[in-house]
Amino acid sequence: MSKANIDVEKILQGKYPAKAHAKRVVEYIRSKIPDATGVLYLEGRSDKLLEDSDEPVPFRQRRAFMYLTGVDVADCFFIYDLATEHSTLFIPPIDPDSVIWSGLPLSPEEALSKYDVDAVLPSTELNPTLARLGAAPNATVFAIADRVSDAVTFLEFTNKDFTVLGEAIDETRVIKDEYEIALIKKANEISGVAHKAVLERVKKAKNEYELEGIFVGTSIAQGAKKQAYPSIVASGRAAATLHYVHNNKDLAGKDLLLLDAGAEWSCYASDITRTFPISGKFTEESRAIYEIVLQMQTETIAALKEGVSWDEVHLLAHRIAIDGLLSLGVLKGDRKEILEARTSTAFLPHGLGHYLGLDTHDTGGHPNYSDPDPIFRYLRVRANLPAGSVITVEPGIYFCEFIIRPYLKDPKHSKFIDEKVLDKYWDVGGVRIEDNLLITKDGSINLTDAIKDPDEIEKIISSS
Amino acid sequence: MSKANIDVEKILQGKYPAKAHAKRVVEYIRSKIPDATGVLYLEGRSDKLLEDSDEPVPFRQRRAFMYLTGVDVADCFFIYDLATEHSTLFIPPIDPDSVIWSGLPLSPEEALSKYDVDAVLPSTELNPTLARLGAAPNATVFAIADRVSDAVTFLEFTNKDFTVLGEAIDETRVIKDEYEIALIKKANEISGVAHKAVLERVKKAKNEYELEGIFVGTSIAQGAKKQAYPSIVASGRAAATLHYVHNNKDLAGKDLLLLDAGAEWSCYASDITRTFPISGKFTEESRAIYEIVLQMQTETIAALKEGVSWDEVHLLAHRIAIDGLLSLGVLKGDRKEILEARTSTAFLPHGLGHYLGLDTHDTGGHPNYSDPDPIFRYLRVRANLPAGSVITVEPGIYFCEFIIRPYLKDPKHSKFIDEKVLDKYWDVGGVRIEDNLLITKDGSINLTDAIKDPDEIEKIISSS
Repeated sequence: MSKANIDVEKILQGKYPAKAHAKRVVEYIRSKIPDATGVLYLEGRSDKLLEDSDEPVPFRQRRAFMYLTGVDVADCFFIYDLATEHSTLFIPPIDPDSVIWSGLPLSPEEALSKYDVDAVLPSTELNPTLARLGAAPNATVFAIADRVSDAVTFLEFTNKDFTVLGEAIDETRVIKDEYEIALIKKANEISGVAHKAVLERVKKAKNEYELEGIFVGTSIAQGAKKQAYPSIVASGRAAATLHYVHNNKDLAGKDLLLLDAGAEWSCYASDITRTFPISGKFTEESRAIYEIVLQMQTETIAALKEGVSWDEVHLLAHRIAIDGLLSLGVLKGDRKEILEARTSTAFLPHGLGHYLGLDTHDTGGHPNYSDPDPIFRYLRVRANLPAGSVITVEPGIYFCEFIIRPYLKDPKHSKFIDEKVLDKYWDVGGVRIEDNLLITKDGSINLTDAIKDPDEIEKIISSS
Repeated sequence: MSKANIDVEKILQGKYPAKAHAKRVVEYIRSKIPDATGVLYLEGRSDKLLEDSDEPVPFRQRRAFMYLTGVDVADCFFIYDLATEHSTLFIPPIDPDSVIWSGLPLSPEEALSKYDVDAVLPSTELNPTLARLGAAPNATVFAIADRVSDAVTFLEFTNKDFTVLGEAIDETRVIKDEYEIALIKKANEISGVAHKAVLERVKKAKNEYELEGIFVGTSIAQGAKKQAYPSIVASGRAAATLHYVHNNKDLAGKDLLLLDAGAEWSCYASDITRTFPISGKFTEESRAIYEIVLQMQTETIAALKEGVSWDEVHLLAHRIAIDGLLSLGVLKGDRKEILEARTSTAFLPHGLGHYLGLDTHDTGGHPNYSDPDPIFRYLRVRANLPAGSVITVEPGIYFCEFIIRPYLKDPKHSKFIDEKVLDKYWDVGGVRIEDNLLITKDGSINLTDAIKDPDEIEKIISSS
C-alpha cells in the first residue's frame, strides 16, 4: 500500500472527462452488440418539490447522467451519436420569471466551456434533434428503462434498447480514471479534516449530535454541501447497531465512539469510519478489540492488488478476527473449524467493503444476497479487483446482542464461544475502521488519511 | 409586541396534542357536513430509497399526518372514528431481519405511552380495521386525494370523501396551540444560537459556505437535525437574488451578508433572516438601508394584533420603504403617487411574510398569485390575522438589476426613481430582517431573539 501522491487541485482544474466515459460505454455496448449504431440518450434529474410543499427536494443528479456529462444541474438531457462521437447537452431554456427570483441560469456558452461536450442546446431542441437522428438508417436509441420522461419521443428510431446502456454504465464505472480518483481523494481530504475536528471535540461533548454537528458543519465549511450518506455517530453499545441512525444519545459513561461519516465532492463519495475512546483512553477490552480490527485492516490492505479475489480478502479478515478473538478467549477451539462453521459472522456480520465512486455503494460489484454461505451473503463485491477500482476496506468486530444471541443458542456455534469471556466485551459495542483504497497493478493506494493510530488518537483526544 | 414568556421545556415534556387537533379538524368538517359520520383516514410517509441507490431519501413526515398524530416515524397509518372519538395509530410490524441491522423499532406499548392516541396496532391490522369501521351504517371515509396507497381498501364504506379532510387540516393548522408555539419557539432558540455563531465568525470567514457550515453545524449540535429550508448565505450583490442557492462566493470586498436560515424542531419551522456587515462596520449606504428595513419591521410588528388585515400591514411596510427611499433620494416625487404606481415593488418585490408552522410556508394563507395588483401578487397570506396564528414579518429592500432595470425603462415608474442616487446603492445588495410573530388578542409576541440591533451587531462582529 502506498500513500496517495495525487495532485488533486491540479487535476480538478481540468474538465470532468465525460467524453472518455461515453467512449468507454460505447466500447462496452459494442462488445455486446458489434454493429451498434444510433445514439445514447440520457435524462438528468428534474427539479422537484417536496410533497405538499413549495420547498425543493434536495437535488441529487442521476449518477448515470453525471458519468456521461459531468453536469450537476437539474432538468438537462444528453445525446451521444455513436457514428460521429458527437455529444450534445440540452439545458433548460431561460425562464424570465425565474431570472427575477433566482438570477441568470447557466448559459449555453458557459456550459460549453465548462463541460466536456461538443454542443449545448436548449432543451426545447431535444425532440427535434431526436427526430433527426432517429431518421438515420437502422438507428437504435439506447436509453435506460424508467428514465425517459413522457414528453420525449423515440418515434423515428428503428430500434429501442432499454437494457444495455444502464448495464454498460454500471460496469464501466468500476474502473476510475485520474479525474474520478482526484474527486474521491478530495472528498477524503475534506472528511479527514472533519474527522479530526470530531476527535478534538469528543472529550468535551455531551451528546452524539454535537459530534454530528461538528462533522457536517466542518464539511460544509470546506464547500462540501452534501454528505455521501447519513452519518453514523454511535456511542457505547449503539456502535453494535450497524445501521444506527439516531445520533442522539448521551456520551457520559460510554467507552467508544464509532463515527462513520464521509463528505461528497462533486457527486463523488468518501466513506470513512473511525472508532475512538470518548475519554481519550481505551479500556483494556476496547484497546484489544481495536488492535485486532486494525490488524485486520492492515493485513487485508497489504493483500490488495490488481486481480486479487475480494472473497479471499474478506476471508483473510475473518481469519485474523478469529485469531484475535481466540487470543482473547472470546472464541475457543480450532481456528479452521471456527471459520468453516462461519461462527465469526456473529462478530463480523457485514462484508469487508464495497466499490466507491459516484455512489457510496458503487455499481458493478455483483453481490449475491442469497448466497447460501452466510460469510459471503452481505459481501457487496464478488470479483477479482481490477486496477483502477476504488474499494472500501472496513473490517469490524461488534458485540450486538440481536446478532450474537442466536449463535449462543446454536450448538454448531456455541461450542466455539466462551460466554463468560464474551460478557466482558458487550460494553465495547463495536469497532470499525474504514479507508478507501485505489487498486493498482502492484498493490493499492490509500486515499484516506484520517487518523487511526490508537496512540495518536489517545494523544489528540487527551490533549484537547 | 411582547417578549416571549413561554416555558418551552416544560410544555414540551407533555405529549403533542394530536387528539385536540383531530377534534378541531372534525369540528371544521361538521361545519361543512353537519351529519358527518365515519372515520378520518391518514397515511404517513413511507420509507423510500433514493433513485438507483440503497441509501434512504431523507425522511420527511407528511405534515397532515404529523398534525393528527405527532408521529415522526415512517410507514404509519391513522384512523379516527368520528362517532366514538377513538383514534388508532398503526405502526410497522417488527421485521426480525431489520432488527439485526437497525435494532428494535418502536413497540406498540412505547408508541401508546409516547403519542396522544387511544390505541396502537401493527399495520397488518389496518385493512381489517377499515373493513369493520366501514360496515357501520352510512359511514364515510374522509381521506386525502393521492395520499392513499394501493394496498388500502375502502370497499365497505358507504361514502368516500377525498376533499374536505385536506382542506380541514390546512385551515385548522392556522391557529397554533401552546404546544405548537413552544415547538416553533424551540426552533427559534436553536436558530438564534446558530445566527449568533455566524455573527461571531463572519469577520474571519473567507467564503459563504464557511458560514453555512457554522449555521448548519451549530443547529445539528443542538439536536436539530434538519433545517426548515435550505439556508441562503448571500454576500454583497448576491443578497439581491431572492432565491440565492449557491452559498459559495468569496466574502472579500463585500459589504453585507444576508443570512436567511432556520432550524426545524420536531417538524416545526423557524424562519429567520439577519443582514450584517462582513467587516463589522456598515457603510453609510448599507446602514441607511438597514435602518429603513428595521423601521419597516418595527412598525409593522407594532401594528399586529388579532384581526388586523395582512394586506394593510404589507402596505404599511411599503409606505415606510417609500418614505425611507425618498429621504435618501433614491425615490423622488409624491409618496402617495409612488405607492399607487406600485414603484416600491421594484425594491420590495416579495410579500411581507407568511404563516409558519409545520411548513415554513404554512397552510391556510390563501395567496392569490394571479392578483392583477402586483403589490399583493406574492403576498402569501390574504386574511385578517387570527389570534394564535404565527406569521413571519420579513421586510426587505433589494437592489436587484433584473428586477429594477425594467422599472427604469417604464416611464410610469422611472419618473419616481433617481438613477444617479440609486447607483450608489447597488453594492448594498439587499437587506432583509425576519422574525416570527405570534398574533395575540392585543398585539403579538416575538418568538425570535436573534440579534438585530445594528450597533450590537457591529460590536459583536468587531470584537470577534
